[in-house]
Amino acid sequence: MPHTPPPTSHDVARVAGVSQPTVSRALRDDPRLSEETRQRVQEAARELNYVPSQRGRSLATRSTGQIGIVVSDLGNPFYLQVLDALHEELRHAGLRMLVLTPDDGNRVPLERVVDGSLDGVILTTTQLQSTLPAQLSERGFPFVLLNREVDDAPGDVCVVDNTEGARLIAEELLALGHRAIAAVFGPETTSTGRDREASFRAVLADAGVELPPERWRRAPFDFAEGHRCTLELLPSEPTALFAANDILALGAYNALYARGVRVPADITLIGFDDVRLAAWEAFQLTTVSQNIEHMVRTSTELLLSRIAAAPDEHLAPRRVVLPARLVRRATHGPPPSAGS
Amino acid sequence: MPHTPPPTSHDVARVAGVSQPTVSRALRDDPRLSEETRQRVQEAARELNYVPSQRGRSLATRSTGQIGIVVSDLGNPFYLQVLDALHEELRHAGLRMLVLTPDDGNRVPLERVVDGSLDGVILTTTQLQSTLPAQLSERGFPFVLLNREVDDAPGDVCVVDNTEGARLIAEELLALGHRAIAAVFGPETTSTGRDREASFRAVLADAGVELPPERWRRAPFDFAEGHRCTLELLPSEPTALFAANDILALGAYNALYARGVRVPADITLIGFDDVRLAAWEAFQLTTVSQNIEHMVRTSTELLLSRIAAAPDEHLAPRRVVLPARLVRRATHGPPPSAGS
Repeated sequence: MPHTPPPTSHDVARVAGVSQPTVSRALRDDPRLSEETRQRVQEAARELNYVPSQRGRSLATRSTGQIGIVVSDLGNPFYLQVLDALHEELRHAGLRMLVLTPDDGNRVPLERVVDGSLDGVILTTTQLQSTLPAQLSERGFPFVLLNREVDDAPGDVCVVDNTEGARLIAEELLALGHRAIAAVFGPETTSTGRDREASFRAVLADAGVELPPERWRRAPFDFAEGHRCTLELLPSEPTALFAANDILALGAYNALYARGVRVPADITLIGFDDVRLAAWEAFQLTTVSQNIEHMVRTSTELLLSRIAAAPDEHLAPRRVVLPARLVRRATHGPPPSAGS
Repeated sequence: MPHTPPPTSHDVARVAGVSQPTVSRALRDDPRLSEETRQRVQEAARELNYVPSQRGRSLATRSTGQIGIVVSDLGNPFYLQVLDALHEELRHAGLRMLVLTPDDGNRVPLERVVDGSLDGVILTTTQLQSTLPAQLSERGFPFVLLNREVDDAPGDVCVVDNTEGARLIAEELLALGHRAIAAVFGPETTSTGRDREASFRAVLADAGVELPPERWRRAPFDFAEGHRCTLELLPSEPTALFAANDILALGAYNALYARGVRVPADITLIGFDDVRLAAWEAFQLTTVSQNIEHMVRTSTELLLSRIAAAPDEHLAPRRVVLPARLVRRATHGPPPSAGS
């Protein structure tokens, strides 16, 4: 199909009988123009099917209208829900969402973030040793850490109370009477992995319950890893298993299912995140909810307020910790009675 | 933390002892510069932590380095896998991925696509009545339709053979001996919904097997809808159920699970897409594979070749149809014997 060149603001000016700068002002809703002129220009633009250039607008306003989200783990339904909710938030704010994932070395090079195409960035799958937050902070580039943080974060953070969440799970297991407790912890290189593990271990230690090496593993937050580790832990005959997030727990669930180990009759299983799948009838996973929508909304507000702040305002870093809540579904119960 | 303004190309020029245009040329690897000059500039840039502006580069090359993906359904794991694979393809091509979702009226306004911030766009969740492909074609804006198409598409298309896929499923059900067959079809407003339904119905009609109104529903591709429709169809006592995609099938599976209906002992269940979850042990869903990675790779190649083509080349629209393959897992079997 042959195509005609797209119309320009000069074409609109000609049709509306005004100057080209007046076209720009009219389409920006500049209040200094008369209502009549504005309408005439807007009608001409509609008639010609004219679309103003984002690039031209961007150079004029020094804003790109684009927010980046750094995410390394699109296989985890948690981050799908984050993307979904974030996209919705940004769309309502008139902003576009650009997805950035790390390179093969699990790094996002600074220059991919600060090359002028983004107004700010949301970091979601940050490793504890990442230097990106410090680099962004040094440049005064707006960012927020969502879900995972770094120590002494030099900027805004929104996380769930991981310590409290893991404590709720450990206390639930102890209250149910479990003593042969196993765990698949997340990576030490993430704040979520580290903080959930430390808190879970502390509660067990306080109660005098051991966690011997054959009863725990540390693994990436990944379905296949949850599956593999669970099979490795089974010979230690645990009556309960804590998986440090839901995708690990779903891997565990499927491994147990494949082996014919009944949940919760033979073993209790508890996850962390409350992804949508956790509520499916086939799983009915008991887990800790961290209200993903709330986390995304809060993070977006933190980021947008930082973008709106004048460069010399020096807003102090803010750290918002959302409450953790135990969601009791159908994968927890008392240990099977001895000898049965 | 106080921050210093980011370094400019003028700072790099001063440190390297060259002119500012030489800095630009050196960082673009312009072969007309001596190796020595190039190295000197690159060292100075590294030293100063200088990052060239994407906006400046974009105005110089008339390319944005950004590809849009239009997707309306981030709750469907199929599109998560598409996003994941597409992001990987684009990253290897040195391109960024921008996610666009429709507004509340399920429309993506033309001006969000052609505002100058994208080199091309991949449309994934297109409705049959969408005018966007025709509008893009008229403007000569590069696009490709992935998974879903429109009739007489005025541009490039990559789809699975939906007719063949649904035929394989219907024939499998008939060969297993099923006659009381039910179906949850997808929306008539999508090519996937329409084509799978037409083909499935045709095979049943050819075999003289009826599909009475109490044995079929048409619903959006959505977990909750698959769940709801399955409960509505159960009173018609089907021995087999075809769900027009995997997320509908997973909704169906969970509804059957909740009602204590055994799969496949009481009812056979077959989906379409082969999303990762279909292979989980808790489901082991029999389905049609459409090789998402292959579809994404092909679509990306179609789009990039169109972007690379000169505007006056008038490449004819290309339509690539990928083969459909029945993946037999554990949710199909013969109908329960009569009277048992």
